[in-house]
Amino acid sequence: MALIVQKYGGSSVADPERVKRVAQRVARTRRAGHQVVVVVSALGDTTDNLLELASKVCRRPPEREMDMLLATGEQVSCALLAMAMHGLGVKAISFTGAQVGIVTDRAHTRARIQDISAQRIQAALARKWVVIVAGFQGMTRDHEITTLGRGGSDLTAVALAKALNARICEIYTDVEGVYTADPRIVPNARKLPAISYDEMLELAGSGTQVMQARSMEVAKRYEVPLHIRSSFSRATGTIISKEVKAMEQVAVSGVSLQKDEAKVTVCDVPDRPGVAATIFTRISDANINVDMIVQNVSRTGFTDVSFTVSRADLARVLRVTRRVAAEVKAGRVIHDDGVAKVSVVGVGMRSHSGIAAKMFQALAKESINIEMISTSEIKISCIIRKDQAVKAVRTLHDSFELEKLGKSSARK
Amino acid sequence: MALIVQKYGGSSVADPERVKRVAQRVARTRRAGHQVVVVVSALGDTTDNLLELASKVCRRPPEREMDMLLATGEQVSCALLAMAMHGLGVKAISFTGAQVGIVTDRAHTRARIQDISAQRIQAALARKWVVIVAGFQGMTRDHEITTLGRGGSDLTAVALAKALNARICEIYTDVEGVYTADPRIVPNARKLPAISYDEMLELAGSGTQVMQARSMEVAKRYEVPLHIRSSFSRATGTIISKEVKAMEQVAVSGVSLQKDEAKVTVCDVPDRPGVAATIFTRISDANINVDMIVQNVSRTGFTDVSFTVSRADLARVLRVTRRVAAEVKAGRVIHDDGVAKVSVVGVGMRSHSGIAAKMFQALAKESINIEMISTSEIKISCIIRKDQAVKAVRTLHDSFELEKLGKSSARK
Repeated sequence: MALIVQKYGGSSVADPERVKRVAQRVARTRRAGHQVVVVVSALGDTTDNLLELASKVCRRPPEREMDMLLATGEQVSCALLAMAMHGLGVKAISFTGAQVGIVTDRAHTRARIQDISAQRIQAALARKWVVIVAGFQGMTRDHEITTLGRGGSDLTAVALAKALNARICEIYTDVEGVYTADPRIVPNARKLPAISYDEMLELAGSGTQVMQARSMEVAKRYEVPLHIRSSFSRATGTIISKEVKAMEQVAVSGVSLQKDEAKVTVCDVPDRPGVAATIFTRISDANINVDMIVQNVSRTGFTDVSFTVSRADLARVLRVTRRVAAEVKAGRVIHDDGVAKVSVVGVGMRSHSGIAAKMFQALAKESINIEMISTSEIKISCIIRKDQAVKAVRTLHDSFELEKLGKSSARK
Repeated sequence: MALIVQKYGGSSVADPERVKRVAQRVARTRRAGHQVVVVVSALGDTTDNLLELASKVCRRPPEREMDMLLATGEQVSCALLAMAMHGLGVKAISFTGAQVGIVTDRAHTRARIQDISAQRIQAALARKWVVIVAGFQGMTRDHEITTLGRGGSDLTAVALAKALNARICEIYTDVEGVYTADPRIVPNARKLPAISYDEMLELAGSGTQVMQARSMEVAKRYEVPLHIRSSFSRATGTIISKEVKAMEQVAVSGVSLQKDEAKVTVCDVPDRPGVAATIFTRISDANINVDMIVQNVSRTGFTDVSFTVSRADLARVLRVTRRVAAEVKAGRVIHDDGVAKVSVVGVGMRSHSGIAAKMFQALAKESINIEMISTSEIKISCIIRKDQAVKAVRTLHDSFELEKLGKSSARK
């Protein structure tokens, strides 16, 4: 008997039929003798509907009230799932985030979990009940309802798995697991049986949105083992855990693609301390996330600073950047929204040399020009023309022979 | 400056436009210098939609989970109204029933309020905020979410008005106030400027469903003055308060009609102590509400017992009644669903004689046969054929000259 945390996303509980199917899956786990704590997101597009309602009554709703509103979505789905469990003859009880003592700070709409007092859950588990917790929400110490921001239900699940010392935290989603590349682009992409937190983090930052990076970081910090799997099949998915020796034998575990990138370059930036800091502080103050940043050595006292942002943020970032460029006496600001970012990721990269070279060669062979390069310990990313993105992913997948990975015994 | 509690029903907040209109009304009251506590029901048919969702995942949902589910409806509307207030530049804060300390017993789906700790509301009022409270809900002492049953938002409003010692509790609805009769039946029906709790209670029990009887009883017990008025106009509605001398000068204040009644008669009931108790205990155990009960003197050792129930309950009550009739060795059980109940109500009845006689004469003059009669201190009800109901109401309204009431200075 083990304690298992299962998290079901909005698409897994989009309608009553799916809620019932989730209930059956939970019941199977319970009947196998395990203790089960379930975390659910809001039904399908409930959250979007609530956001739309809010936008119709107020242009800029206070964040505190936004949390009051949005927290209802998960409360509905957890109550419904408890009912569906009951319909199957399995004892279950639902709780809001506040009820199970998920205590957060006061940062409404993006609160951080500070503490979980798991007694109430443990008491229910001791009575052999399935415990269903509304994801995405918590409360402050003075009983204000908060929400955890995008991907918040994953965070609830990971935090509960940690607090309860669960054997595994299963993340149910609409894909079968983590693949060596997007199967829609690379038909022979493989589902990875296992991957490290770090690899998954780099993939998450590169367009493989199975799970929010923040939850992954928490899972990594507390070494909560995750199992990413499909709520529509019984197949085993991908286990995410801390790095094991076997993982290092594979240099590259996946190729990822981010197509909605835009590139911005600030030309002729005076090359003195603090200038880059000024630029990126201003952008960050405008709540715009910058992805890659590249600055080359300066030979003239001036340098070009390039960075990428999500294309949705381009117009805003240009306004901010032009203002700050004038301020720091830089040159003009140019942009390009016809780019994409392709990355190869793998913990084995650290011990295998020549991965970057191999990546650049593979792209060159297909006449794909590299416009920016950025590397981390376990990832190499290149900005290329968007219309060459698919070709790039395929050729990289081939070059690193990722189609062999799913079968590699080292990863089984 | 006064403290005013305002309650808005589901039809008053059916969509974002109406929520904004309610916000404007609240803002007007606030700007007039009053402290305002608002209680809201769920938006339009939210509750019905949630009930439908529940019915799709489970045949008999546990009541605890039902409350988890249904309580979200009011949480949504109070958050939206707070946002709309904010949009008008008026500081407002929303609270769930649990957050403002509405403590109830553990009777899920029909909980009773045991205590209200109003500190949190008072603190917000002291900061000059409008306080918006989710109606219909509370929590038990161990933090379980409960709901108060049908008309629960009225109850929340009345209980808060009492706890906060409000000057008045305004109940906003889709009618202009309480009328001498249903204006759809009697075109010259008058809106009553004032009425006593008792009269309103009798009217509520007779088909005038402006407000649930339970909330009215609480208002009466604590002498919370109510103002029933329309959320779609600025007109003054009807004030409900304890009986004042002026009210007694009018014998009859209203005529009410209940059309969905059914009559059941148990024939030849042995006339000995405890038999009626057995019959009605069994019916009550089946959760069926009995309205009128009539039993005449017995001359043969056997008597006929008749009672009325809501037509929706007829099939169930017949099953129960037939079983118990056999048990107590009574005769057959007959029923009639072609009846209606017409009542005249007025506190002045107590000091005016001949009201019953006048009522019976008026009905006789129109050849309306009376099948059952039941009287209380301030109400006389007759069961008649349903197809004569409209005629009965009109003739009674005329006979008691109720069209003059709205103008009567005694009631101004």
